[in-house]
Amino acid sequence: MSAVRVGVVGAGNMGADHVNTLHRWVSGAEVTYVADIDKARAAEVAAAVPGALATDDALALIAAPEVDAVVIASHDSTHADLAVAAVSAGKPVMCEKPLAPTTAECVQVLEEERRSGARIISLGFMRRFDPGYGELRAALASGAVGAPLLTHCVNRGVSSAPGCTDEFSVTGSSIHDFDTVPWLLDSRITEVSWHAARPTSAVTGLRDPQVLLLRTADGALTTVESFLNAGYGYEVRCEVVGERGTLALADPARLVTDAARARSTGYPADWRPRFADAYRLELQAWVDAVAQGRPSTLATAYDGLVASAVAEAVIVSMRDGGRTVAVQVPEV
Amino acid sequence: MSAVRVGVVGAGNMGADHVNTLHRWVSGAEVTYVADIDKARAAEVAAAVPGALATDDALALIAAPEVDAVVIASHDSTHADLAVAAVSAGKPVMCEKPLAPTTAECVQVLEEERRSGARIISLGFMRRFDPGYGELRAALASGAVGAPLLTHCVNRGVSSAPGCTDEFSVTGSSIHDFDTVPWLLDSRITEVSWHAARPTSAVTGLRDPQVLLLRTADGALTTVESFLNAGYGYEVRCEVVGERGTLALADPARLVTDAARARSTGYPADWRPRFADAYRLELQAWVDAVAQGRPSTLATAYDGLVASAVAEAVIVSMRDGGRTVAVQVPEV
Amino acid sequence: MSAVRVGVVGAGNMGADHVNTLHRWVSGAEVTYVADIDKARAAEVAAAVPGALATDDALALIAAPEVDAVVIASHDSTHADLAVAAVSAGKPVMCEKPLAPTTAECVQVLEEERRSGARIISLGFMRRFDPGYGELRAALASGAVGAPLLTHCVNRGVSSAPGCTDEFSVTGSSIHDFDTVPWLLDSRITEVSWHAARPTSAVTGLRDPQVLLLRTADGALTTVESFLNAGYGYEVRCEVVGERGTLALADPARLVTDAARARSTGYPADWRPRFADAYRLELQAWVDAVAQGRPSTLATAYDGLVASAVAEAVIVSMRDGGRTVAVQVPEV
Amino acid sequence: MSAVRVGVVGAGNMGADHVNTLHRWVSGAEVTYVADIDKARAAEVAAAVPGALATDDALALIAAPEVDAVVIASHDSTHADLAVAAVSAGKPVMCEKPLAPTTAECVQVLEEERRSGARIISLGFMRRFDPGYGELRAALASGAVGAPLLTHCVNRGVSSAPGCTDEFSVTGSSIHDFDTVPWLLDSRITEVSWHAARPTSAVTGLRDPQVLLLRTADGALTTVESFLNAGYGYEVRCEVVGERGTLALADPARLVTDAARARSTGYPADWRPRFADAYRLELQAWVDAVAQGRPSTLATAYDGLVASAVAEAVIVSMRDGGRTVAVQVPEV
Repeated sequence: MSAVRVGVVGAGNMGADHVNTLHRWVSGAEVTYVADIDKARAAEVAAAVPGALATDDALALIAAPEVDAVVIASHDSTHADLAVAAVSAGKPVMCEKPLAPTTAECVQVLEEERRSGARIISLGFMRRFDPGYGELRAALASGAVGAPLLTHCVNRGVSSAPGCTDEFSVTGSSIHDFDTVPWLLDSRITEVSWHAARPTSAVTGLRDPQVLLLRTADGALTTVESFLNAGYGYEVRCEVVGERGTLALADPARLVTDAARARSTGYPADWRPRFADAYRLELQAWVDAVAQGRPSTLATAYDGLVASAVAEAVIVSMRDGGRTVAVQVPEV
Repeated sequence: MSAVRVGVVGAGNMGADHVNTLHRWVSGAEVTYVADIDKARAAEVAAAVPGALATDDALALIAAPEVDAVVIASHDSTHADLAVAAVSAGKPVMCEKPLAPTTAECVQVLEEERRSGARIISLGFMRRFDPGYGELRAALASGAVGAPLLTHCVNRGVSSAPGCTDEFSVTGSSIHDFDTVPWLLDSRITEVSWHAARPTSAVTGLRDPQVLLLRTADGALTTVESFLNAGYGYEVRCEVVGERGTLALADPARLVTDAARARSTGYPADWRPRFADAYRLELQAWVDAVAQGRPSTLATAYDGLVASAVAEAVIVSMRDGGRTVAVQVPEV
Repeated sequence: MSAVRVGVVGAGNMGADHVNTLHRWVSGAEVTYVADIDKARAAEVAAAVPGALATDDALALIAAPEVDAVVIASHDSTHADLAVAAVSAGKPVMCEKPLAPTTAECVQVLEEERRSGARIISLGFMRRFDPGYGELRAALASGAVGAPLLTHCVNRGVSSAPGCTDEFSVTGSSIHDFDTVPWLLDSRITEVSWHAARPTSAVTGLRDPQVLLLRTADGALTTVESFLNAGYGYEVRCEVVGERGTLALADPARLVTDAARARSTGYPADWRPRFADAYRLELQAWVDAVAQGRPSTLATAYDGLVASAVAEAVIVSMRDGGRTVAVQVPEV
Repeated sequence: MSAVRVGVVGAGNMGADHVNTLHRWVSGAEVTYVADIDKARAAEVAAAVPGALATDDALALIAAPEVDAVVIASHDSTHADLAVAAVSAGKPVMCEKPLAPTTAECVQVLEEERRSGARIISLGFMRRFDPGYGELRAALASGAVGAPLLTHCVNRGVSSAPGCTDEFSVTGSSIHDFDTVPWLLDSRITEVSWHAARPTSAVTGLRDPQVLLLRTADGALTTVESFLNAGYGYEVRCEVVGERGTLALADPARLVTDAARARSTGYPADWRPRFADAYRLELQAWVDAVAQGRPSTLATAYDGLVASAVAEAVIVSMRDGGRTVAVQVPEV
């Protein structure tokens, strides 16, 4: 069986990470092409893969005969157009979240996919492939703690990127839970509200941390803490409270150190060590599906639309005093 | 130095527990009198203490020459009148929370105490004496994690008592956090909102679990989960998120068991094992203060009024669609 | 019921700690007398207790009419003579471990106690009163993990005292396990061997850490690590491996801190915070027994003899190449 | 770059697991041939891989032009002969531990490899590729806790296979630590002793659990507990005690469950879930080395010889009353 030849658009942190993962850790994949608006950067990343080509023309990559399938990891604003181009070319695509910055653009992508007659867009909500989340979902589905009533999510990072806005905390960080919670509970998010904590003094003018309340169709309530400038490390928590007990992600640290009057485990500085395995398993699942010519088990373009619709409702609440806002998912 | 002679009003679970603690574990205290509306129950509890008298007349106990100081652990509805009686008799009193079911009654008690010219009412918010909460508060005050921005509290029990109401979850369980959070953060609660999770099917007609949002004057936000029918055990959690890190209560279990494919620690069936040490330390601190004729280090009657005012605001929110409600503390 | 009037011999760290515990935390006890070879130190410690007397004459304290019962916390070399004096005076005594530096002296004390016709010597193996050890023992006795096959004990401290010897690691630190393991397993130690790890460079000429193997009569094997200069903190571990599972002491820390890329719990600098509760509960149990005129539930003088016999066997092994040595407990 | 074509000898649990891992999870590998003494079993395992052939003739597999490199996962007694055959054929080989049941046979394999002029035998001590062990080793090497003085290893399983012997506990289970400890400490094992715990009643006539003491050339002491019938689950522990602190493997569980009065994490029933990632990373490292024509980073045939020499010394001690035995590694 010949390898799936993958072209990766975007050679920033995320794209370079995908190139490396596909090249070194994914069975049955071959990176053949790397595109970036900065051609030197594309070339640098491609250089790590024997035989891979580099370009600053993403559309050329998508059209290239050396490319069977496309990974989109470029700037958020480019996702929709590139996804449409890949669909038009009939090539399966794994697009990083978000599918598009607005639900309107998401709808356009979905309509293009529908016209193509095949479900060939996969969305990079990698938490679905994290082994911890996977065990939590399986235990919940098995009825280990009864029906879910309440969920607590926490997303913390060391520091936010320059120019970060209140909205980005929603669209760039909390959006993961907009996908994960419905996937865990098997119930869509119907209404939301946004609440400011006391803002950290680390970044002037940013309302960070934030707390969101999400209501799912089953009546369960979810609290989400997003704290981009938590300082101490990158950490993700999730606990589902059911009728007979709770299920929570364990501390993923592998080493316990006793030193200097403390027992400790470490936190990574960013999301990459925490979710390295999730990215690998996600890309493997995607490549396997491409190789077998079937829809992938990843999140779909529609999942991406839904998550963006939740984000839009949260931002309405943020701008309107924290009132409860119903989630509107456009018909497609 | 002669022992402080204590009369205990109320011989239910809480009162019997206080009698036992004072008799067996508190230095410098002697239980001399036990009162209960059910005289047989009073006699049974008193029988465990050599020489202790029993009565069904709480006022007689308060007036008795064998009683230097009074513990009130009878029904909530009796707290205010008994506290007033003890103050009138010039005897220091340790009153279980709540000081009174309404803020109006709390105010009457405070006015009586003011007229007495001495601060002789202490309130039983025992979490202030739990060693874990104490370490958390000290670490926070030391600046270990910077200014507090966000707090997460969780209160879970095995099952609610028969006849439990939505309001009782607030006045009987969450009220602990209405005292603890301002004490930890050194900032009063200014506004609140109430939110229902999906209700457990364990009890018909009860909205349990509940989530509260509390805003303190410093701008920090607190989430409180109260789940009376959590089923799995009695558990209290508290985490304060600061600018540079977080502080949280550790699992208080003392034994780790490896058996039957699991590593586990146990949960108690109710609050008594969890807070046995807190009750002991609270009563010891109270007895020490009585013996030395000085105000105690326990929560005050005013703290009790403030906590009741927060509870009233939460109940207004509960009955009004979860809107944000400002806390009004009556002037005294 | 009048308080038990206690005289404390020894006003060093341990004695001062006992005075404070008896005075502040033990119900039904009163410290009336403090003795120390350094009279100023005795006076300083006594000054914290209203009405307590101070002396440099331990025998005067034992004889004093103000003293109902005696705590011995002076230098190890004085324990035997003072215990004999207290027994001769007919006063119950709580003697810190060891009962005496040699088994020969232990035997003399036991013979004196036998002549007195009453079991009035208690020995300060306080781990028996640590709530964690207590839960472990109860779970083991309940058959939670089946018959015990193997036990792992670890005793670590920050640094050893000046002049510390290889032998002191046995008689001062590991000796706790010589009492605790038979008490947990209900089986006496029959043979032992001593093994050096690579010595720490922290102290020249000291063989630290050490590993001991202990065999109990039931066939179970126990490993003991003693590391006086572990540096990072004071820590005690104990795990019993049974036929169907294991039981172990949990981390006793009360606070979890997330900061500086780590999740951590703290270690104390010495044994006092770790075993404060055990000392309190031990002294309370002793005072209760004295007040009721019955033998205490503490370790006995015979338990002290047995532990010293084990220590002697370990030291024989240490000096003889780590060979297996049978424990010889003198007949009394 | 074309994939490395791998032939796998042995289609039992271990071999089938390797076939699956190579096929599904290793980048750049292709399983082309499966051999087993039971041809039906070989065929069944091969059927999961499109195009893979099956045979009952291991030598035919080794000689086949479709095979670039060989994995040996057949019965221990066949390892040496098959490794020699692969070396003779000039094909890189990844042989499961042990290299051979006796050091004498190990020596023969090493001599054959030396004659071949290339280091082409790799040995399957997969713990070297477990991320937890890897972090522990890196932290130790970085000096995080100072020089290692003492190591504690624990290997526990649910139940031993039928016919299991005292010796198998050494050669099949503890042997992992004979490789891991020198690899962690960078110091070879020089002497050993064997000690029986009280035997479990689960299996008649088996001395299980066992405790080993290992001395490394640096003077450090290692304790190893091997308990094949621990009952409660499969668990591996490792703690290295250094001059300034300790390093230990964390609990690898991913899910925490609160239910039925307990907080718990799960244990697997056997080694496969625990070391799935280690096997994947080991095979990936091996395939990468084969593809690049360089020696692998896996354990070598010499490492296998050394581990077998330690095992032989332990068995001498077992049969000779637990005396200390020097490890003799044959010259090659």
